Amino acid sequence: MTIDTLNTGLDTIWIVLTAAMIILMEGGFALLEAGFVRHKNNVNIIMKVFADITIGALSFYLIGFGLMWGADAFGLIGTNGFTLSGDLSHLKLNVSLDTFWLFQAAFVIAVISIVSGAVAERINFRAYLLYIVLMTAIIYPIAGHWVWGGGFLGQLGMVDFAGSAVIHGLGGFAALAAAIFIGPRKGKFTQNGTSAIALPSNLPLASVGAFLLWFGWFGFNAGSTLSATDGRIGHIAIVTMLSAVSGGAATLLYTLFRYKRSDAPSVINGSLAGLVGITAGCAFVTDQAAILIGAISGLLMIVATNWLESRKIDDPVGAFPVHAVSGVWGTIALGLFSTDGGLFYSGSWVLVGTQLFGLVVLCTWGFVATWGGLALINRIVPVRSTEEEEEIGLDISYHGVLAAYQERDFINSEEHLIDYDNKYK
Amino acid sequence: MTIDTLNTGLDTIWIVLTAAMIILMEGGFALLEAGFVRHKNNVNIIMKVFADITIGALSFYLIGFGLMWGADAFGLIGTNGFTLSGDLSHLKLNVSLDTFWLFQAAFVIAVISIVSGAVAERINFRAYLLYIVLMTAIIYPIAGHWVWGGGFLGQLGMVDFAGSAVIHGLGGFAALAAAIFIGPRKGKFTQNGTSAIALPSNLPLASVGAFLLWFGWFGFNAGSTLSATDGRIGHIAIVTMLSAVSGGAATLLYTLFRYKRSDAPSVINGSLAGLVGITAGCAFVTDQAAILIGAISGLLMIVATNWLESRKIDDPVGAFPVHAVSGVWGTIALGLFSTDGGLFYSGSWVLVGTQLFGLVVLCTWGFVATWGGLALINRIVPVRSTEEEEEIGLDISYHGVLAAYQERDFINSEEHLIDYDNKYK
Amino acid sequence: MTIDTLNTGLDTIWIVLTAAMIILMEGGFALLEAGFVRHKNNVNIIMKVFADITIGALSFYLIGFGLMWGADAFGLIGTNGFTLSGDLSHLKLNVSLDTFWLFQAAFVIAVISIVSGAVAERINFRAYLLYIVLMTAIIYPIAGHWVWGGGFLGQLGMVDFAGSAVIHGLGGFAALAAAIFIGPRKGKFTQNGTSAIALPSNLPLASVGAFLLWFGWFGFNAGSTLSATDGRIGHIAIVTMLSAVSGGAATLLYTLFRYKRSDAPSVINGSLAGLVGITAGCAFVTDQAAILIGAISGLLMIVATNWLESRKIDDPVGAFPVHAVSGVWGTIALGLFSTDGGLFYSGSWVLVGTQLFGLVVLCTWGFVATWGGLALINRIVPVRSTEEEEEIGLDISYHGVLAAYQERDFINSEEHLIDYDNKYK
Repeated sequence: MTIDTLNTGLDTIWIVLTAAMIILMEGGFALLEAGFVRHKNNVNIIMKVFADITIGALSFYLIGFGLMWGADAFGLIGTNGFTLSGDLSHLKLNVSLDTFWLFQAAFVIAVISIVSGAVAERINFRAYLLYIVLMTAIIYPIAGHWVWGGGFLGQLGMVDFAGSAVIHGLGGFAALAAAIFIGPRKGKFTQNGTSAIALPSNLPLASVGAFLLWFGWFGFNAGSTLSATDGRIGHIAIVTMLSAVSGGAATLLYTLFRYKRSDAPSVINGSLAGLVGITAGCAFVTDQAAILIGAISGLLMIVATNWLESRKIDDPVGAFPVHAVSGVWGTIALGLFSTDGGLFYSGSWVLVGTQLFGLVVLCTWGFVATWGGLALINRIVPVRSTEEEEEIGLDISYHGVLAAYQERDFINSEEHLIDYDNKYK
Repeated sequence: MTIDTLNTGLDTIWIVLTAAMIILMEGGFALLEAGFVRHKNNVNIIMKVFADITIGALSFYLIGFGLMWGADAFGLIGTNGFTLSGDLSHLKLNVSLDTFWLFQAAFVIAVISIVSGAVAERINFRAYLLYIVLMTAIIYPIAGHWVWGGGFLGQLGMVDFAGSAVIHGLGGFAALAAAIFIGPRKGKFTQNGTSAIALPSNLPLASVGAFLLWFGWFGFNAGSTLSATDGRIGHIAIVTMLSAVSGGAATLLYTLFRYKRSDAPSVINGSLAGLVGITAGCAFVTDQAAILIGAISGLLMIVATNWLESRKIDDPVGAFPVHAVSGVWGTIALGLFSTDGGLFYSGSWVLVGTQLFGLVVLCTWGFVATWGGLALINRIVPVRSTEEEEEIGLDISYHGVLAAYQERDFINSEEHLIDYDNKYK
Repeated sequence: MTIDTLNTGLDTIWIVLTAAMIILMEGGFALLEAGFVRHKNNVNIIMKVFADITIGALSFYLIGFGLMWGADAFGLIGTNGFTLSGDLSHLKLNVSLDTFWLFQAAFVIAVISIVSGAVAERINFRAYLLYIVLMTAIIYPIAGHWVWGGGFLGQLGMVDFAGSAVIHGLGGFAALAAAIFIGPRKGKFTQNGTSAIALPSNLPLASVGAFLLWFGWFGFNAGSTLSATDGRIGHIAIVTMLSAVSGGAATLLYTLFRYKRSDAPSVINGSLAGLVGITAGCAFVTDQAAILIGAISGLLMIVATNWLESRKIDDPVGAFPVHAVSGVWGTIALGLFSTDGGLFYSGSWVLVGTQLFGLVVLCTWGFVATWGGLALINRIVPVRSTEEEEEIGLDISYHGVLAAYQERDFINSEEHLIDYDNKYK
């Protein structure tokens, strides 16, 4: 046994274990979103997450990985490495290419899962499948190349340790574009201008989701070192925790004092906002900064949620407030608080400026590419569910089943659908 | 600190962590099965999984481990190591015996949990407890000895990296025997020959189960290296992922185009089938082969599900289609696609033949030993629930409680049972 | 790469991964407790757990950690290390202070979560927030200092490897004090002296919780080595498993033969009792002792549950029977069975005596400090919910929402609350 073999083994299990934790986050997304939306759309949103993983990982394997991590052309795009073939020695990996791919695949399915929440309860399932391919094969990989794969934003000095901008900013702005493009759910905004409430189908389920996401986030941030001997792992883990608890505490106390009750969805999303906010800077900011970043993430999430309502933009699970807003804030916060070149330490605005420029590029790209992509898809399959599908619920419409049944006996095969129709139409 | 100490430590935490992931799969089994069966049998199926872990692990500790891993006699059986005592130096372990046992115990409780699904909603709970002992103390350990413990199948050259045959083939055929032995649920197959549907009590819950199983599978397959410095870990992890997503994608697209709707239980089981299918060959096949193996696993699962229905065999959660069929296919696929002796690489039929012979032995053993065991148990305790128990539901019948209550107030202690009886009988 | 760097990296990822597993236990606590209590209090109990993590981790960061791990004064208290500043070289850590803090923070939120179950369904949410601060900033850290941080109990030779006494004994007696202080739930004990049943809102959910706790416990116990090269890791893991399955099996069989039905909550809590019982001695007792410790833990849990009922003490999720009783038993069992100085190996009563003395100190401290703290808090905010809040349910009262809705359409914002009031008041 040599030290090098040991080192490679150590790095490998670190990456495989953290990748598995990130992949478990898909369970978190599924339950969080299912718990937040109405009961009649529970199965659909979970099937969307299954589609994110399955179609998404395959698309990334066939096309996306090459565009993201292949040999750079003009700072814009990767040019080889599709299906992991070709010469990828420029990546200078300390582990096998397979191991590296698994970790990257875990990231891409997280990005697309951000969007799945924003279009909940009203997107055509087939259209969504096409969008998955677009996002995981092209939109995200190209953006990822710009920052991490040798592209122009990385060359300019943009820093985004585990993806506040590349994952959450881009994913969140894609979610915004999609939410606007397909329009609000029927009945969400009434004619007299008020906003209605969609009652969460299951908050305990949403909580399981949040805890699974939280667990996975340790893999997300600390695993992004891609090396178990990276001295920053402990620090990354502690600031991840501190920002999450700070985001949760801020929303818990804010809603308690402002509304006289601690609002459960806000606390859940506040903790997640804290996690998103620290994702860019986890390797570069102090504990104290992390607590501040988390608290501000949580509060901005509430502000952004209210802003969306006032703009009549319908984002059923809060994908934009949690991912885009906290992601943008976290990326800027890194420019402010980084002990390695941040404004408050170096006095220089350079890093802040670079971060801002990168954000504009990434968020615009996420928004525009998604908008354009959906417009294109709309010519093939209508992106929006029909009124009837939406009214009946996407579970029955697209999957022929409801999320839960209390029936004690067997029924004949189509009875439950007819029954459902009689009851509700 | 020496390199050897480091190496042992690294291997130890790798095995302990992956074993913990596999043990968490029991939570996955419990929820997957509970979500698929009818509401009135939710608690029972979860209690069966608790019995799998508790009674199963103890039986394996007392008896099974020795039969599986003890010193070989005639290529048939292990002869020492009961309660981990005696000389087990022939195992040449790189980690402590305790660590090795934990990983093996995690396997055995997975095997018995496969069977628990097939007999759902109609097996007598006490009879099932006896069957657990039989499976975990004797049936599986002996089969495991044949392939992995120094027995005749391993000597012949049969290869089964993490158990497509030993775990899933054997477990799946045991499940088939049990399902046939106790017969279909009352009302499942009507007199005019049609098959009725048992509506799933909770698909979101079943999905949590699938995600936990998926997470655990990385431990199952990659952990089976039993060494963190095994250079194949990254490759095992990637093909595990690719086969799972391929199985899920195949069933998602197939049911979408064939039935005009993506069938949620099929997608869930399709992903699991992909995981089962790659379990034998994960260390020996290419990415491309893994994608193919997964897709075929998913589609075979659907074919096998329909075949069971046509044969009037009642397997409530699809244990046979997911585990037996994909397990058999995966074991054969290893014979075809192994880059180390597989037909398509070596041109030789030897490995395929060995795999087929091993499968026949293992599946026959699983089927016959289970059938015989249940016949024996049936003389002590009737294996089948009474009609009344089944009608009321096994939760009330065996555990005196329902899975979920909406009551706002307290009740006196037996009221809820009486109430239930009035309502439903 | 040097051996020392590798060693530090290995220890770091071991601690970070096990800490993440322990933090996931909060999800376990949330679901276990939510599943056991009545439906109308589901959100509240989950929000209490979110408060445990968020407020608890921050309090521990600001104050608790210093009191627990700072430089010792008089064997009673730590005096520096608040917000991780100051000279903490006396800790002689093999990993970074950040890493160590994360693991310790995971412990403190487990302690407070024990109490959250005992006061379920009737504690004022604001009062509970204050109690969280008290427990995580002061009560637990001081006790932790006594045993682990250089204080007088550790100096006397008290042994508590992963916290049967410090975590579960103290937490369980604090839970008892809190349960008595705020009194039983309205309607739990009737005037004629009988005890009523609160039907569990969701046993499958409680089971998910138990499986997550079980998974996390491997992190809890094996991670407490704080070193991946500690040769005891494999042994700790196996006895953790054996004690858990033994506790579960004992309660499963006992309730089956005593009541003619296997009681699901007892089996769930029996497994957890087995886990609590082995937490003190996991590094020091044999497999056989672990099986015995687990079985006795499970049975004592049932005895203690009945005792609480007879004493008219209302502990909705069994926090005292599971944590306090098994914790005390486990700490004593270490005195009996430790192969390093235990009575049955050394013939000496010294260790038993030390353990008993430590238990008296810790449990008294947990009980008295909690009682005093709640009395103090009661002057600021009434600790007990009003009758009306309790009757309506804490979800509506404190969080303005129910746990689950089946509504298919949108409603206007306050309608669901009014509706609920009409229906139930």
